[in-house]
Amino acid sequence: MIIVLKPSTPPEQIQLFTDKLCSDYDVKVNRWDGIHSTVLGLIGDTHTVDIEYIDAQDIVESVKRVQEPYKKANRKFHPDNTAIKITEDIVIGDGSLHIIAGPCSVESEKQIVEIARSVKNSGATLLRGGAFKPRTSPYAFQGLKSEGLDLLKIARKETGLPIVSEIMRTEHIDMFENVDIIQVGARNMQNFDLLRELGRVDKPVLLKRGLSATIEEWLMSAEYIMAGGNDNVILCERGIRTYENYTRNTLDISAIPIVKKLSHLPVVVDPSHASGKSWLVEPLAMAAVAAGADGLIIEVHNDPPHALSDGAQSLTPAQFDKVAKRILGLKESMK
Amino acid sequence: MIIVLKPSTPPEQIQLFTDKLCSDYDVKVNRWDGIHSTVLGLIGDTHTVDIEYIDAQDIVESVKRVQEPYKKANRKFHPDNTAIKITEDIVIGDGSLHIIAGPCSVESEKQIVEIARSVKNSGATLLRGGAFKPRTSPYAFQGLKSEGLDLLKIARKETGLPIVSEIMRTEHIDMFENVDIIQVGARNMQNFDLLRELGRVDKPVLLKRGLSATIEEWLMSAEYIMAGGNDNVILCERGIRTYENYTRNTLDISAIPIVKKLSHLPVVVDPSHASGKSWLVEPLAMAAVAAGADGLIIEVHNDPPHALSDGAQSLTPAQFDKVAKRILGLKESMK
Amino acid sequence: MIIVLKPSTPPEQIQLFTDKLCSDYDVKVNRWDGIHSTVLGLIGDTHTVDIEYIDAQDIVESVKRVQEPYKKANRKFHPDNTAIKITEDIVIGDGSLHIIAGPCSVESEKQIVEIARSVKNSGATLLRGGAFKPRTSPYAFQGLKSEGLDLLKIARKETGLPIVSEIMRTEHIDMFENVDIIQVGARNMQNFDLLRELGRVDKPVLLKRGLSATIEEWLMSAEYIMAGGNDNVILCERGIRTYENYTRNTLDISAIPIVKKLSHLPVVVDPSHASGKSWLVEPLAMAAVAAGADGLIIEVHNDPPHALSDGAQSLTPAQFDKVAKRILGLKESMK
Amino acid sequence: MIIVLKPSTPPEQIQLFTDKLCSDYDVKVNRWDGIHSTVLGLIGDTHTVDIEYIDAQDIVESVKRVQEPYKKANRKFHPDNTAIKITEDIVIGDGSLHIIAGPCSVESEKQIVEIARSVKNSGATLLRGGAFKPRTSPYAFQGLKSEGLDLLKIARKETGLPIVSEIMRTEHIDMFENVDIIQVGARNMQNFDLLRELGRVDKPVLLKRGLSATIEEWLMSAEYIMAGGNDNVILCERGIRTYENYTRNTLDISAIPIVKKLSHLPVVVDPSHASGKSWLVEPLAMAAVAAGADGLIIEVHNDPPHALSDGAQSLTPAQFDKVAKRILGLKESMK
Repeated sequence: MIIVLKPSTPPEQIQLFTDKLCSDYDVKVNRWDGIHSTVLGLIGDTHTVDIEYIDAQDIVESVKRVQEPYKKANRKFHPDNTAIKITEDIVIGDGSLHIIAGPCSVESEKQIVEIARSVKNSGATLLRGGAFKPRTSPYAFQGLKSEGLDLLKIARKETGLPIVSEIMRTEHIDMFENVDIIQVGARNMQNFDLLRELGRVDKPVLLKRGLSATIEEWLMSAEYIMAGGNDNVILCERGIRTYENYTRNTLDISAIPIVKKLSHLPVVVDPSHASGKSWLVEPLAMAAVAAGADGLIIEVHNDPPHALSDGAQSLTPAQFDKVAKRILGLKESMK
Repeated sequence: MIIVLKPSTPPEQIQLFTDKLCSDYDVKVNRWDGIHSTVLGLIGDTHTVDIEYIDAQDIVESVKRVQEPYKKANRKFHPDNTAIKITEDIVIGDGSLHIIAGPCSVESEKQIVEIARSVKNSGATLLRGGAFKPRTSPYAFQGLKSEGLDLLKIARKETGLPIVSEIMRTEHIDMFENVDIIQVGARNMQNFDLLRELGRVDKPVLLKRGLSATIEEWLMSAEYIMAGGNDNVILCERGIRTYENYTRNTLDISAIPIVKKLSHLPVVVDPSHASGKSWLVEPLAMAAVAAGADGLIIEVHNDPPHALSDGAQSLTPAQFDKVAKRILGLKESMK
Repeated sequence: MIIVLKPSTPPEQIQLFTDKLCSDYDVKVNRWDGIHSTVLGLIGDTHTVDIEYIDAQDIVESVKRVQEPYKKANRKFHPDNTAIKITEDIVIGDGSLHIIAGPCSVESEKQIVEIARSVKNSGATLLRGGAFKPRTSPYAFQGLKSEGLDLLKIARKETGLPIVSEIMRTEHIDMFENVDIIQVGARNMQNFDLLRELGRVDKPVLLKRGLSATIEEWLMSAEYIMAGGNDNVILCERGIRTYENYTRNTLDISAIPIVKKLSHLPVVVDPSHASGKSWLVEPLAMAAVAAGADGLIIEVHNDPPHALSDGAQSLTPAQFDKVAKRILGLKESMK
Repeated sequence: MIIVLKPSTPPEQIQLFTDKLCSDYDVKVNRWDGIHSTVLGLIGDTHTVDIEYIDAQDIVESVKRVQEPYKKANRKFHPDNTAIKITEDIVIGDGSLHIIAGPCSVESEKQIVEIARSVKNSGATLLRGGAFKPRTSPYAFQGLKSEGLDLLKIARKETGLPIVSEIMRTEHIDMFENVDIIQVGARNMQNFDLLRELGRVDKPVLLKRGLSATIEEWLMSAEYIMAGGNDNVILCERGIRTYENYTRNTLDISAIPIVKKLSHLPVVVDPSHASGKSWLVEPLAMAAVAAGADGLIIEVHNDPPHALSDGAQSLTPAQFDKVAKRILGLKESMK
């Protein structure tokens, strides 16, 4: 951490501040006097140093981290890729490509079982389906809740596909015990109490990037889960909010290689939410695979116009079949 | 709601769609045939119509709301300003200006009582203080929790100032029974489960705008609380995320008159979080009052460099005294 | 164009407004009366209708385009892809993939000829090089100017590669007569006088997307050039400005399929400027090809640390060789 | 300037790099060796150092400026406010408040003279009017051009109000000789050739902030003009592009105090373009004055619905009269 002090700070104050840093944190402080300003360099385990505390000092002009503020999620401390085993055959982050597919919301047994069978035939290896739905409007369909989870389990039994579903509050953690991957939605990426509780669970968590989260904030949210002892975090890029409103969000394709460089965690991409338009799913999915994603999460509905949520971005099973073939073909050709 | 259909949609499909709209919702459908395209107009109570459902139809080119999707928060249906009574003397939204002041985090009895006395002397009418703190890093100070709430109550007893504090999870609602205004932070603006539970409480809620929430989404979150039966919502503009990174956030000053036009709810402004820099608090607070805000929420700490959170944006009591005088003078001159 | 009028607008005013629309523009107006509001629909050639004029009417609540405001750049009126012939062998937009490579700035004959030879060997089919450089600082290197153009022509003579270079003002158009593709930079995307003059030239124009331009604004800038009679416009996505500052810009990968749907013009991608980091060029270039780009424009410098501009995002010839092989291999596998 | 080197950079390379920095620039280099990394500090006149060049070095991990990259526009080197004399009585930046008012476009002699008389009566001290109009669509009204400038001069003769008008290309500079303040529009804020030419002119320049320009980029554009010898630059905040689309742009109210701190140049605010809605002009203008603006630039049209451009954001003379009274009253009360 590099701290630039304000011009003409009295030497005694610099000494006091330096002493305080050494006693509060496990760091050493190097000092370098320029003509106009003095610069301090902190050496040691600076990821616990509170940058806001430093910045609040009267004598501080600006402060810059050299080391990232996350440690468990940081590739520097864990050079090897983390591969997360969902079943014997399904490992996310081991170099293979996994497609998680299914409807935005679980609506009925028939619906979820049919879609599960269909996407499995097309090459999907995991089933997604929302039971608890975060909706902007209190008047919109909010999901089948615990019944939705039960129906997902039926579909898993019928097809063997592991299931992924979104959690919305800490009190529901027990209810998700039998779900294979617990999803944290974009709007809850900084629901820190929820993250902390998920750190105590022994189950993979799919952590969606917040609507306007920086990559660093996203990795800090992963750090929350990992700090609690749960290392099984899968990151999910799902588009960010920008000024461009032709699409619902703007897929940040650069996030894939950046996360791969900064962290050892696997990263999957959600082209359905990123665009909000079904005809954009294929080109965005292709781009994600070409850029190095470990997986995709794609919305598929047997009857998009009658879907109870997010129909505009859902593919029909036939469309998904075509997209999956192109995606898997691309992955094959890149080996 | 205006629905533009795709060119050359067959008349039978238009009829089927029209029938379905009339049976699903309490609306009438008008139809108007152009040369290239057909336009449908929905009349009636369209705020419950799911715009995503409409947009997902194969035959739909685009859809546009004429009516806002919120109703209880909408000035069209409630022309008069909502004034929220906190105590006999303190009413937010009645044309007066209230300053909510206090530290980011409650740290000790001495700290909170001293600050409370000081800000009261300077003209503040409510006391803020964080007991549960949402922090980006799991390694940063997370607040004194229930002990912090107890200390706030001591400060209220000493000074008579009503207290405002942030809630982070539904399980804590009981703990906040004795708090005068419950704050929902920016990161929880779309924690819909929390909003829904707060709708069942008979207590004012200060709803901060999300980091990248549109004004419509913000009002929809107010609608969540109001839909549950709690009409006492105070909106708080606290800066939005933009590309400009000189400030922590960008204060959206336009939000004040816009919210006043679209809604009947009171709006307060947080210049401390909006800028992240203490020297910007005064000009931004002045601007907010000039633009019509009902109140301000300002961070004050007796020792900002040693504050356990957000020190860089906190004023000292002496600085606050000067700012409060200018703000209250401006308000007086605008009468 | 759909115009929603304010509630309770008097019928006479509606009539007056309707008459005015019919006399000012080549349109018919349909009217539809709802319970609360009246909606007008304009039929005919609405792309010349000034939406701001409509929006300024006292009686207008809101207005929505059904037809896009651009015509010559619009795929609806030109369903076939535009393929732009640079030489007998090099056609951009015909389904092939072209790599434009070269240094940010032309620095010397030796530099540009060496790089040209090298990138040609690696598979590039066009040579880029800046002679006039738009720099944020007046104290930074501003390019070799006309001498730079002369050096590019020498490199073309040596290698046969057509050349691409950026223009910065209308007075220079004559100087670019012998350049194969004239580039308009992101900062000049809405320099309308320059666009208009380029409409009078019979030469391909590479139009970069502005830093915060919407896709519609970008196509409107293409329309400026085309309205003057020059149909040879190549669009170039180079990243947009967002809140995320890990990268210099955020590559909007979705822009590729969207432009392909809305327009018949070819689109190329600049992964070097989009990221500002040389190690991101490969994954972003791969993603662009997978998403359907017609070409790539990549910065290559024989000695990036000593480049006079943009060194951080330049590849060495050896790095470029590796990247080009992967890109061309991917394109081959997608056939 | 602080340069963090990559871990385990060989000492010889550090020495070579250090030597090069000292020979290329007028700086001294201090070196500080940490456990993991080495940090270099540059002392001296670093505002000419090309940060991209530094960042491109293989051995560089990251680089941070301590000193701003602008010098002539920097308050550190010019502590006193710059006051720009337009006439004997009108000085912008001397603590007084000036209102520049007038139509978006000059349309006829009658129109501009009438508006000029009216706004003068209401308290405006300068007249604005567009002769050359930057329009997104090539099919929209582009201004009366040189005739528009002639009409502005007639209005000045009739009222005594100095005139402000926008320039769009370098070739027109002679035509603007008799204009009192030359405006550079947001879309040309980084038209560096235009800025450079305006540096050779002895006339005040009103420099609008670009749609997505950072404050630093904006000050660098002022530096371009000042580097040429023209110190008479007035900055104009006119809203920035964000994700919020209720308003045309988002007024960055914080920019006023920030520019005042970083620079000695005067700053005026354009609430008309910032919002795009006439009913928002008053509250935003009030906020700007409260935050410390030196002036306002407001669109006034005698017949907004028939204005040839930007009617939706124009006030009528009667509305302007009311707004001007409130603004001037607020300024008076703040003395």
